[in-house]
Order: sequence, then structure tokens, then C-alpha cells
Amino acid sequence: MDFSLISGGTVTSVPGFSAGAVHAGIKEKDEFDLAILYSRMPCIAAGVFTSNLIKSAPVTLSQRHLTQRTARAIVVNSGCANACVGEQGAKDAAEMARLTAEKLAIPSEEVLVASTGVIGKPLPMSQLRNAFPKVKLRQDGGHELARAMMTTDTKPKEIAIQVETKEGKFTIAGVAKGAGMMHPELATLLCFMTTDATMNADFLQQSLKKAVDVSFNMLSIDSETSPSDCVFLLANGLARNTEISSNNGKAFQSALDEVCTYLAKSIAQDAEGATKLIEVIVEGAINQTEARQAARTIVSAPLVKTAIHGGDPNWGRIVAALGRSGANVREGKLDIYLNDICVMKQGIPMPFDQEQLRISLATANKVLIKVQLNSGDSRATAWGCDLSEEYVRINSEYTT
Amino acid sequence: MDFSLISGGTVTSVPGFSAGAVHAGIKEKDEFDLAILYSRMPCIAAGVFTSNLIKSAPVTLSQRHLTQRTARAIVVNSGCANACVGEQGAKDAAEMARLTAEKLAIPSEEVLVASTGVIGKPLPMSQLRNAFPKVKLRQDGGHELARAMMTTDTKPKEIAIQVETKEGKFTIAGVAKGAGMMHPELATLLCFMTTDATMNADFLQQSLKKAVDVSFNMLSIDSETSPSDCVFLLANGLARNTEISSNNGKAFQSALDEVCTYLAKSIAQDAEGATKLIEVIVEGAINQTEARQAARTIVSAPLVKTAIHGGDPNWGRIVAALGRSGANVREGKLDIYLNDICVMKQGIPMPFDQEQLRISLATANKVLIKVQLNSGDSRATAWGCDLSEEYVRINSEYTT
Repeated sequence: MDFSLISGGTVTSVPGFSAGAVHAGIKEKDEFDLAILYSRMPCIAAGVFTSNLIKSAPVTLSQRHLTQRTARAIVVNSGCANACVGEQGAKDAAEMARLTAEKLAIPSEEVLVASTGVIGKPLPMSQLRNAFPKVKLRQDGGHELARAMMTTDTKPKEIAIQVETKEGKFTIAGVAKGAGMMHPELATLLCFMTTDATMNADFLQQSLKKAVDVSFNMLSIDSETSPSDCVFLLANGLARNTEISSNNGKAFQSALDEVCTYLAKSIAQDAEGATKLIEVIVEGAINQTEARQAARTIVSAPLVKTAIHGGDPNWGRIVAALGRSGANVREGKLDIYLNDICVMKQGIPMPFDQEQLRISLATANKVLIKVQLNSGDSRATAWGCDLSEEYVRINSEYTT
Repeated sequence: MDFSLISGGTVTSVPGFSAGAVHAGIKEKDEFDLAILYSRMPCIAAGVFTSNLIKSAPVTLSQRHLTQRTARAIVVNSGCANACVGEQGAKDAAEMARLTAEKLAIPSEEVLVASTGVIGKPLPMSQLRNAFPKVKLRQDGGHELARAMMTTDTKPKEIAIQVETKEGKFTIAGVAKGAGMMHPELATLLCFMTTDATMNADFLQQSLKKAVDVSFNMLSIDSETSPSDCVFLLANGLARNTEISSNNGKAFQSALDEVCTYLAKSIAQDAEGATKLIEVIVEGAINQTEARQAARTIVSAPLVKTAIHGGDPNWGRIVAALGRSGANVREGKLDIYLNDICVMKQGIPMPFDQEQLRISLATANKVLIKVQLNSGDSRATAWGCDLSEEYVRINSEYTT
């Protein structure tokens, strides 16, 4: 298997997909806040949703529409999450699907709905109704859609790759929004992906779940899970390759993992107030679950995040986070590396050039924490970001 | 049962206890950093320790010394946690116990050791050896000990109460240190309590565990568990009351809960960078475990903490935290109150005077969040603090 990056690629770099966006007026600033993604061919579709018990109305609706495993359009708005507004939320989400369906002359059930923004406020439906006719779908509209999803993101997150496998050539593309909003709220995740690969529907769902587990589910900005999180993958089959299923799906899985991981890292890099990407690799765990737990606990530990923000090689905080992670940690077996410099070996502090490591931490855009538990063969990688005064400022501003 | 506060009370307000402190030179500033608490009578003793799998050397030693359920002295230093320093840690902790034992002419096994400060640095033993002879024990030395435990605490946390029960009169006193250090590290908790009550040893341990569960275990500053956390309770029996055990222990339990809760709230109020105490009351949970989970998740949610820091009545973040807490939450049943103002009733957002609530949140020293799950009869209370730029500043300063 081989894959290559499409330069400037967007979610509509995949044949058969088009998109468009407008400013409907949900956001105060004159920025895109409503967008539609459309496939001219029927698609099989897969989705992964928030684990939060409080689910936004669009999440509930999209879960229902995905039970048939097909979809031809996604409608998305930013600025309002349509969550925690009582029964009105379900009505408004259904109307969003209906307005999209009527515009595209497809059944309502073929539309997935996603909303991101403030919780507890109803959607301004009259503004949205006026805006729908103005959305123009274009084959190069992917970038507009990426901008329409943004809240406090400072840049769009997009990727498209071309994949060559034994089953044929195809394209996979994705777009995601990250942490923060203009009216600061939860670190809401939305991600839409497209592919022209011919896919078995069961395998599409299964491979999406796997890819999300090693990418978005290993991402933590602030330990908060939003009621709006969702990841969609639409496959329209235009590549006319041999159908991909669990028997021959290895190459597709690697390519999808690649796309999801790229988007997850982009979100961490552009998180609220972040100045650095943090990557944590845990090796030598007794099983996969514990490797993941340990990596996620370290990457989301406030005291690790603040130390890295200050360029402080304060590795004791990494050990303390490991110890409360739930993973089976033996102090006497631990090796710890900070930006490839060994600070602990077999549980003993190692001498290192403090000033050199301090400079390396302070100047790098990416900080690598590597932990060897020396207890087994499992490994996991997690991504996050430093915790800055700016994160607190963004999220403590008076907004409601 | 009746109890009254002793004005200016300290851990040595209990008959038979004395204490003293010196500046041994671990802290750079000329402040107390070594202290001893001593009982002239033999005591039965109880202890509760950190759940972190990485334990400091003093924690491991004190756990061993407590297996006999007796102790006559506690030695404590601040500025260095004696954690993650390999085998040297155990040797140094043992020497701390021995130096204390020799000074007081008691067996080493009767000494509990506690250290708080930077992780990964060995204790400066030669300075400590010189300092031990200079510690003078006095009946009014409790306040000195409280100061010697402090790191980035801005004030000591102490309480003493007199209790009158059917079993007789006695005193309970406690001292604790809170969140932060001069070399900022983990939100390390140390708490020592004394009583002259005559106690059954099994019951003493059991009632300490219960009191810690409703107080310190419901406290969260930054979700970090330190390798040094420990809570000790020494009972010397000088009150000569009827022995208190599980049959007649209700009054003692209430009094001990009171002391622990007072100290836990004091720690939250004086946490790193905190400007407000946050109290979260969850009612109507289907069981105690879920009530506790829900309350702790809300009080430690970064987006709730930043909103309250900014005086922002952003209640959607409370609902989102509830939804990921693991508790059984039904959106349609939720009532939420912020400083006694209802913002959600039966899952529907309630109209409220935003400006009035904003002012109430911004000016209060204490913010009360009350959640009614309307699913059962269990309740729990948790304490924490707001998340400020100052917390990030303290913890990102270059220190090692």
C-alpha cells in the first residue's frame, strides 16, 4: 500500500462530493456559520458519537438516520450547539435535515446534522430558513465548509490523500473542527470524512471505530467531553475498486488511521490557548487498555501541561500522573524520556543538562514524552497541548 | 452531642500534645521547614494514604509503622517530597524517624514521617541532622508546626473543637497543608489530627476512613493525586472517657467529620491561584457512589472552573460535565441552581436575570452549585475552587 498527500486537499477533493457555505447570522462576526456537504452518488455511511449522556439534538437525530447505514449529505452550523433546549431542539434538528433534503431533492433520512456552539440556546431558525437557499454547492467548496465549522479555531483542519492498494486506487479526505468557540464552550469535536472507495457497510463502520480509537479518542485538550461530538465517514464508491471488507481492509484501515491521526494532531496544535503539541508514547504496558490509560492520563494532567507551558523539565509530575492513571506501574522499572533525553532509568533519576532541556522544551513546537513501563509489549500514543493563561482567559470571559 | 470551637485552636490544643519547628534550610526563604508533633502519652493511631501507585518513601515507611496501630510522634518537612529518588529515599525516611526517636527517647516504630515538596530530589540529610537538636517542643507549638508544613499555602489551616458526649468530654484538633509549593509541585495533602478521647483502635481507623471520604476525598483542586498524601489521627486517651467504639461512636464520628470538612474547605479556599470556593451539592442520585461521582466531576471540570472564575453563569458546562460523570443522568429530569437561582428545571432552561447572577458569581467568595437529579435519594457534597491565570502562572514557572 502506498499513499500520497493531495496538496491543498479538502473534503471535496474526493470525486462526486461538493460543498458550500454562507453566513446565516448565528455568529456575530461576518463569517461562514452554515454549510452543506453533498454526494451526487448514494453513499454508505458510518458514524461515531459522543459518549456524553447529555446528547445534543443533532447527535440524536444523526444516530437515528445512520441506522440505515446510508447518507448523501451533511448539514453543519457553528455558533449554537442546539443542546439542552428541551423538545424544541429535536424539532429544529429535524427541520435542518428537512431544509437540506428539500434543497437537494433527497429524502430527509439521507441527511446527517451537526451543530456546534453554545449549549442551552435554541437555534435561530428564521435566520437559518432564509440562509438555506443561498448555499451554493461547488466541487471546490470543501474549504468553505471547513471555515463554516470553525469556532475559536484559528485555522481550518483538512486533509486529502490518494491511496493505491491491490483492490484499486481511491481517495480519502477529512475535515475537522477543534477546541473552542467564539462564545467559549466545550472542546467540541466535529469531523467529516469522504472517500470514493467501494466499501462493505459493516466494515466501514468497524474501520471508522478503529481509526477513531487510535486518533480522536487519544486526544485531550481539557478532559471535557462535549454533547455534540461526532465523526462521519461517507463512501460513494466512485473509485470502482474491488469492494473493501474485513478480508482485504488492511490498507484502507492504515490510510484512514493516517487521516484521523493527522486531524487529531491538528486539533491539539490549534487548541484553545495552546502553544505546543504534546505527544505521549507509552510502551511496555501489560495490555492495550493500560497503555492507553497511561498515555491519556499524562497528556491531560494539568501539572504536566503547565510545566511544559513553562519549559520546565519537571518530570516528577509525569511519574505522579502515571501513578494515578490506573495502569499497573512499578516505580523501579520506569524509564522516562523528555524530548529524547533520559530523565529516569529503572526508577532512578538520571543526571541531565537542565538548562539544555529547558531550552529544548521552551523552543520546540512539539514536546515528546516517552515512557517505558518495562512490564509488557503494549504501546499507545496520545496527543494534547500545553495549558496556558490564554486558555483560562478564553474560557473565563463573560459570554452568555 | 454538642461541640464548641476553641478560639485560636491548634493541633496542640489537645491535652498531652506538644510541637516545635525550625528552619532546617530545605526552603530557600527563612521559613520553618521541619517540625515534630509529640504526645507524652502512648497513643493509638490511624492513617489514610494516597491511592497513587507511586508512593513517597515517607508514605511507605509510615504505612509500615502504622500496622501496630500506635504512634507517639509525627515528623514533617516541607520543600522536598522524598519521592522518586530510588533506594536513598527509604534510607532517608528511616533516618528521619530514627533522629526523631532518639530526640524523644521512644522507639523508631512510634514515629510517623511525612514529607512534601519537589519530587525526584533527595532530602538534604546533613542539614536535617544539624536541625533536629534545635527543635524545641512546646505545648503551644502547634501553630509553628502548621507553618512548617506550608509550601505555596498563603495561610495555615488549623482547628480545635471541644466535644461533649454521653461517653464524656474530649477535644479533637487538626492541621493540614494545601495546594502548592514554593517549587510548585502536586496539590499535596498532609493532615495531622489529635484527640484526647479514649478510643477503640479498630474504630479509630474506621471512623478516620469515613471522615476522609466525606471531606478530603470530596476535594479537588486540579485532579492530580500526589504520591505524598497522608492523613494521621493520634488519640492519647487523656480525656479518660468511656472507650468509644462502633457501638457508641456516632458523636465522635460527627465531630471528626466536622474537623475534616473544615480543613478540606480551608484547603480549597487557599488553593493555588484560587479566588473562590466552589461547593457542589448533588441530590436525588440513585446511589451514594453516583452522587459522589457527579459532584466530584462538576467541581473538577476545567470549563466550570474557568466560567466561575470569570463570573459567567454558563450552566451548559455543568450539564455537560454531569453527562460525562458516569452517573445515571436523565436530561429531562434535571434541576440546576447557581447561587440558589434556578437556571434549569426538568431539563428546560429557565429565564433568569443574567446580569444579577453574573454579579452574584463575580463578587461572592463562595459559589454554590446545586444539582437535583430527581432519580433517587442519595446526595453528596464536593469542594473545589476556580481556575485562574494565576494557577497556570504558579505551575508553569521554571523551578527545577
